Amino acid sequence: MTRHIDFYFDFTSPYAYLAAARIDTLAARHGREVRWHPVLLAALSEATGNKLAPFIPSKWNYVQKDLARAARRLELPFQLPPAFPQLWLNPPRAMLWIQQHHGDDVARAFARSCFKSAFGHGINIGSIDVVADLAARVGVDADGLREGVNSPAIKEGLKTGIEAALANGVFGVPYVVVDGEAFWGGDRLDCVEEALRAGAALAA
Amino acid sequence: MTRHIDFYFDFTSPYAYLAAARIDTLAARHGREVRWHPVLLAALSEATGNKLAPFIPSKWNYVQKDLARAARRLELPFQLPPAFPQLWLNPPRAMLWIQQHHGDDVARAFARSCFKSAFGHGINIGSIDVVADLAARVGVDADGLREGVNSPAIKEGLKTGIEAALANGVFGVPYVVVDGEAFWGGDRLDCVEEALRAGAALAA
Repeated sequence: MTRHIDFYFDFTSPYAYLAAARIDTLAARHGREVRWHPVLLAALSEATGNKLAPFIPSKWNYVQKDLARAARRLELPFQLPPAFPQLWLNPPRAMLWIQQHHGDDVARAFARSCFKSAFGHGINIGSIDVVADLAARVGVDADGLREGVNSPAIKEGLKTGIEAALANGVFGVPYVVVDGEAFWGGDRLDCVEEALRAGAALAA
Repeated sequence: MTRHIDFYFDFTSPYAYLAAARIDTLAARHGREVRWHPVLLAALSEATGNKLAPFIPSKWNYVQKDLARAARRLELPFQLPPAFPQLWLNPPRAMLWIQQHHGDDVARAFARSCFKSAFGHGINIGSIDVVADLAARVGVDADGLREGVNSPAIKEGLKTGIEAALANGVFGVPYVVVDGEAFWGGDRLDCVEEALRAGAALAA
């Protein structure tokens, strides 16, 4: 049986983009599969009472440079979408619908594609048109999706997922849990890999 | 002429402890000297409007584990002082006084000793008795220091230093500036080293 690792993210987080681009490959190297959990940073921020980086001028000035530097080190393209950040509800809701109707593999492919569009190409992925188009390209029933994202069950699903994340101690993203050990931040994937290596050694 | 790098820190920051233990050696490897700038996280937190980690239960729960893990990776001892955090005004004021009366080398030795006591041995370094004792051990005139830390000039010096840090965009610590490029976080020293390497290559 494949043991999972958990990956909490928000589609609006550029640091989550940097982690999202690598996490499945990293997990696969150690025989693991990643459970992707979309959350909303806005909700986490409300829970902690702390403002997100874009709303603190000095921090945001720094973070933009740090992101460009981190992307360069990882050899990933990076640009921010216009009018960033915005509350993107369609991508996480779409992901939940895709998980239910097309399974985890397709949902992950959709999520990676969203991140690449948003922060690799600097595209605003908030609208349902963009989301449906990205979903269609990974084989999703786009008409079903357009209907589905607004269903009460999906809206409630996102809300429940966020509550579960908060209950599990998630206060920011990207947030990865490996065998009960948590790692916060795009710059902690090296530690995640160490933990996976140690976990494999234990299981052997 | 030695080109400097700038290191902003607060004696109450465990992540600054992890950086403080390495930064002078790291800089020296590249022919640089470190200018240590004590600030107060409480003042930075007031400026950004965000609470510090110990005041957000889920984050603090994580950060304590992350600190223990990071210290283990760096092979540094780590423990938190009792009743942490507290506002420690004497250590930064003492450091400014020591800089003025004994020079930068002694001040840096004092600062490293403070950090080691606080987070290597878990000692509350807030009181003037502890501070004077640590200072005496690196050759400081402890009686002069006891007088000096409460002088208006030293109090004002710390305040001015914090204002300058804020004006330079410092929003958290540890915060390192190398040739105009900023690095925030104890986990960015690898990037600092890369920047120093690149700077040396440019200067060659």
